[in-house]
Amino acid sequence: MTTQPPRPPRRPSIAPIPPGARDLAGVAVRRRRALERRTLDRLGAQGYTEIIPPTFEYAEVFTRAGGTDITDRLIRFFDLDGRLLALRYDFTASVARLAATKLADTPPPLRLCYAGRVFRQDPSRESGRPRETMQVGGELLGVDGVEGDIEAVRLAIALLGDAGAKEFQINLGHVGALAPALAQLPDESRAAARRLVDRKDAAGLAALAPGPLAELPFVIGRREALDRAQHLLAGSPAAAAVARLAAIDEALTDAERPHVVYDFGEVRGLDYYTGIHFEVFVAGAGSAVGAGGRYDDLMGRFGRPLPAVGLALDLDAIAEAVP
Amino acid sequence: MTTQPPRPPRRPSIAPIPPGARDLAGVAVRRRRALERRTLDRLGAQGYTEIIPPTFEYAEVFTRAGGTDITDRLIRFFDLDGRLLALRYDFTASVARLAATKLADTPPPLRLCYAGRVFRQDPSRESGRPRETMQVGGELLGVDGVEGDIEAVRLAIALLGDAGAKEFQINLGHVGALAPALAQLPDESRAAARRLVDRKDAAGLAALAPGPLAELPFVIGRREALDRAQHLLAGSPAAAAVARLAAIDEALTDAERPHVVYDFGEVRGLDYYTGIHFEVFVAGAGSAVGAGGRYDDLMGRFGRPLPAVGLALDLDAIAEAVP
Repeated sequence: MTTQPPRPPRRPSIAPIPPGARDLAGVAVRRRRALERRTLDRLGAQGYTEIIPPTFEYAEVFTRAGGTDITDRLIRFFDLDGRLLALRYDFTASVARLAATKLADTPPPLRLCYAGRVFRQDPSRESGRPRETMQVGGELLGVDGVEGDIEAVRLAIALLGDAGAKEFQINLGHVGALAPALAQLPDESRAAARRLVDRKDAAGLAALAPGPLAELPFVIGRREALDRAQHLLAGSPAAAAVARLAAIDEALTDAERPHVVYDFGEVRGLDYYTGIHFEVFVAGAGSAVGAGGRYDDLMGRFGRPLPAVGLALDLDAIAEAVP
Repeated sequence: MTTQPPRPPRRPSIAPIPPGARDLAGVAVRRRRALERRTLDRLGAQGYTEIIPPTFEYAEVFTRAGGTDITDRLIRFFDLDGRLLALRYDFTASVARLAATKLADTPPPLRLCYAGRVFRQDPSRESGRPRETMQVGGELLGVDGVEGDIEAVRLAIALLGDAGAKEFQINLGHVGALAPALAQLPDESRAAARRLVDRKDAAGLAALAPGPLAELPFVIGRREALDRAQHLLAGSPAAAAVARLAAIDEALTDAERPHVVYDFGEVRGLDYYTGIHFEVFVAGAGSAVGAGGRYDDLMGRFGRPLPAVGLALDLDAIAEAVP
C-alpha cells in the first residue's frame, strides 16, 4: 500500500475578481467562441450586417430604450467631464441609436446583428448572478408586416439549431392578446391584474376580471392553443393578435413548428414590446436563454421612427446548457 | 440639364457617443472580425489556449502589473460595495492573475491567448484618441530560455502575415543592453540620460555619459547592428543582451529575418520588461500596432513567480492600416 503525498496547500487567491465577474478558461471559452462564430455566420448568411457599438455609452441611451425601471441595474460611472456613463446594458439601445445616427442614410429595411458583452447588476447584490453576459442577436428595422415577425422567429430557431441544441422551445405570445382586456380595467386594478397573470392566479383573476382575462393567461400550447384563444377573443380587437400568431404558425415549416409553443400568459415586457414577443428555452437551462419580439415604438425615441423586431441570445447560458 | 434635388437635412445627432468611443459598422467590423478569427486561429494552432477574463476588475490588478504610472489612464469607477474597479487596462495583468489563481494547478509552461477590448484614457482628454481598443495577444509563461523569446518574435511575424500585412517590421531590443551603463550613472542623472536616449540627443549623451551610452542608442539595423553593439559592449555585462539577440537572429528563417530590425535606442518600457522587448510597425500606420517582450518579474507580483514573454496587437490599428 502506498500513501498519497500530501497535496500542497492551494495558494490563497491573492487577487480575487469582483462579485458577478467571470474568469473563463478551457472548454468554457472554446464553446463560447464556437457559438459566437456559428451564430454570427448564420446571421451574416441571412443578410444581417454586424455592428460594434461602444462598450460604454451615455447612461441616457439605455434608459431611453429600456425605461427608467432599468436605471439601478445599470453599471454606471462618471466620465471625466462629469457626464453619466453606463456599461452596455443591451445592444438594442445601441443599435437603435446607431441606426438613427451613423446609419441614418441607409434606407430601410436594415438588418443588423451583434455579438459582445452586456452588463447588468442586481442593485441588492443578492442574486449572485453574473454581471457580464455574452450576447448575440439581430434586429430587423423597417418591416412592420407579419413577414418580419416570421423572420425573427425562424431566425431564433435556426440559431438554436446552429448552437447544437436539440431540445429547445420558443414560447411565443403577442401583447395585443391581453392588452385590450387590461386596458378596460380601471387604472388602480390594472397592475394588480398583471401581477395575478404573472403568478397564474386563476381565482384572483376570476374575482378581479371575469371574461377573457380570467382564462386567456392559462392558454398555452400549439395550434390548439391558437384555436382556443381565437374562440375566447372572438369579436374582440384582441382577435387580430391571435390571427397574427396563426399566420406565423402557418408560415413555419414542419421542422420548425415543433419548437414553437404559443403562450398567452406572459406579461413581462408588456411595456416594451408592441407585438409578438418570445422567450427561448433549452433543455438543461433553468431560465430563458434568449428573448425577442417586436418593439415598433423604440426607434422613434431615437429620432428615426421605424418598426423593429429582433432577438438576443445569452451565449453564456447556451454554452453551459448545450454540451 | 437636370438640377439635383436638395439633399434632405441630416438628422441632428440626438444621441451622441462619449469622446473616444467608436461606433463600428460595415467594412470596419468585417475587417476586425476577420482579423480576430485569423489571429486566434493562429494562436490556437501554436498551442495557445484562449482565456476570457472579466471586462472590469479591481483597479489594483492593473496597477500591480503596470505600476502606479498607469493609474490616471485607467477608466475607474466604484463598485456597489465601494471598492475601486477599472475597465480592463490590458490583458497581461488579467492573464497573470488568472494563471496565479484559477490556473494555479496547471503546470508550466502555459501558453495563453486572448482577444477583446482594452480601455485607456488620456486624463487630459487632449489626445482625442479612442478609449477602447480591440487587442489580440499571447503570453508564454514558464520558459526563460531564448527559445521563449524566439517563439514570441516568430509569433508576432506569423500574426502580422496572417493579418495580410505585406510590409511590417519588428523593432527588437533588449533592456540588458543599456541597463548596465544606466545603472553606473549617479541616481540624479539616470532619468536625464533616459530622456536623452529617448530624444536621440547625441551631444547631450556624449556630455553626460561618454562610452557606450553615447553611441549605443543610435545603433539600429540588421545583423550589422548586432555586430556593432557587440563591439561597443565587448567585455561589459551588457554583451550578454546582444548575444541573446544574435541567437534570436540565428534562429529566424530567411523569410522571417527581413521583418526584424535590432534597435538599441528604445528606453520606453525599461521598467516593465526584463529582457527582449519589441514594437511592431506596419506600412500605413503612424505608430506601433503591437508590442511585446519579456517580463520575468510580473508573475511574482501575483504570487506565482514564472518567467514570461508575450505580445499584444492592436486590431483596430491593423484593420485601419491593412486593406
